[in-house]
Amino acid sequence: MTALESEGGCPEVLAGLYPRTGRARIVGVTGPPGAGKSTLVQRLAQALRRSGTTVGIVAVDPSSPFTGGAILGDRIRMAEIYTDPGVFIRSMATRGALGGLARATSDAVDVLDAAGFDVVLIETVGVGQDEVDVVRAADTTAVVLVPGLGDDIQAIKAGILEIADVFVVNKADREGADRAAAELAAMLDLSGERAWRPPIVRTVAPRNEGVVEALAALESHAAYLRASGEGARRREQRARSRLLALLEERFRRVVETRAPEQDGLEEAIRAVLARREDPYAAAERLFQGLVRVQVGTAR
Amino acid sequence: MTALESEGGCPEVLAGLYPRTGRARIVGVTGPPGAGKSTLVQRLAQALRRSGTTVGIVAVDPSSPFTGGAILGDRIRMAEIYTDPGVFIRSMATRGALGGLARATSDAVDVLDAAGFDVVLIETVGVGQDEVDVVRAADTTAVVLVPGLGDDIQAIKAGILEIADVFVVNKADREGADRAAAELAAMLDLSGERAWRPPIVRTVAPRNEGVVEALAALESHAAYLRASGEGARRREQRARSRLLALLEERFRRVVETRAPEQDGLEEAIRAVLARREDPYAAAERLFQGLVRVQVGTAR
Repeated sequence: MTALESEGGCPEVLAGLYPRTGRARIVGVTGPPGAGKSTLVQRLAQALRRSGTTVGIVAVDPSSPFTGGAILGDRIRMAEIYTDPGVFIRSMATRGALGGLARATSDAVDVLDAAGFDVVLIETVGVGQDEVDVVRAADTTAVVLVPGLGDDIQAIKAGILEIADVFVVNKADREGADRAAAELAAMLDLSGERAWRPPIVRTVAPRNEGVVEALAALESHAAYLRASGEGARRREQRARSRLLALLEERFRRVVETRAPEQDGLEEAIRAVLARREDPYAAAERLFQGLVRVQVGTAR
Repeated sequence: MTALESEGGCPEVLAGLYPRTGRARIVGVTGPPGAGKSTLVQRLAQALRRSGTTVGIVAVDPSSPFTGGAILGDRIRMAEIYTDPGVFIRSMATRGALGGLARATSDAVDVLDAAGFDVVLIETVGVGQDEVDVVRAADTTAVVLVPGLGDDIQAIKAGILEIADVFVVNKADREGADRAAAELAAMLDLSGERAWRPPIVRTVAPRNEGVVEALAALESHAAYLRASGEGARRREQRARSRLLALLEERFRRVVETRAPEQDGLEEAIRAVLARREDPYAAAERLFQGLVRVQVGTAR
């Protein structure tokens, strides 16, 4: 897994295990900082274990863009399940490369899938584009919220409405839980008819309240994915995004190896800084120097 | 500006105005949802206006990845300054394209810079990779926090430590403000010697408390950028990131136009879904069909 997390990934490793993938149920868990996702994921894993299901966890932290280090805290908080051989936990942090985290997450999910874990949980912090890309690797996505998130909740909601298959109002023993659930329900009412209406589940993860209900909601969505064909559609969409991201990463590698040796990039930077050339013109000139677009048909 | 926000930007428009850029001071304001950034930005703009400084504001919302609509709320909340001709506000939301938002933000900043605004404020929600990319367009970045963000604050801090030039503890009349400021200071102590130690300013934006101090901290960082040469280094780094992002966007355009017409992408997706080919191998084959890497020296 460490090899897969390195820049550019590790094509040989993935090639070897890829044929054995495709069996695991992949569940994403995302939400704003402080929503209690780690504890909830731990409780979900424990509940799954009680029914004999094995669980792989990929804990992704996009909030640490420069350090590249995984958050030790997750592992500590998950200590209770850390010694169970039926659970494997991998913490990851972004290394600053656009798209790199989503790629590395997909690869890690493939490793756990090929290793035979029945369910793979992807835990990620936040509700921005990164997290959306990360949870795109999942079949089912749970968005975890807490009561009283403040006045930017509307802004958050706009984004999560479209990625949530299940809403979890965690820390539901806090004041405002009823209001939060009611606001979510009202938002769903306003968003029009949809084939799947995300259920809203209330949990108090540390006390294990609502965890079984959350699991049932996730399983009910899995059944919907199978019955409606939406599951296959999502897996196709995922393969597409993944291929496009790998293509871009491949091009980035050309830029990184070729541009410095040509000294074209440094010259272009100087031209842009001196306002002799605008960024678009400089980029176009660099592009033409790096690659020639193939014309004609594919092989 | 609308033309620049469209996919692929508008090279002709930017080419025309780019020579007039480079004068404005660019200040980024970021932080988690609910930190009160909009109000703070409004108060900072008002304080700047009182000294005759003109202000352009680019309000970026990466939390709305699918809808593509700007948040009306920002405009409503900024109503007080909306009628001042010395202030121009532009709201932007991501349109789902990786890197597209950072590109569009840089272009919008260039428009306001070329139009002669003395200071350009970039406001963005969150602390993930997107926001880091967005605030990379700024000379100085203020990170806004609030007391009592919950137990994920450590995770947030890991990322923001490296992008913050100024810390603002907003809503400082709330319980826990002293602790939040103390924790930030302790974290700065632990992070070792740095040429610039980010000051920590407390504000209560709606009551205008601390706003002048926040402005002074931002101006002090601007003076440091000039005196140390760090400002020039950052602008070079920014030109580099921007060129690389435009190069990638250029390649993405090749993929989008060429891959469908070759039908290679659809075939590759089918092969990946059937586990006949792993994603890396499929991407490499697609890449070779799309472009030929140029060898030899640049012109």
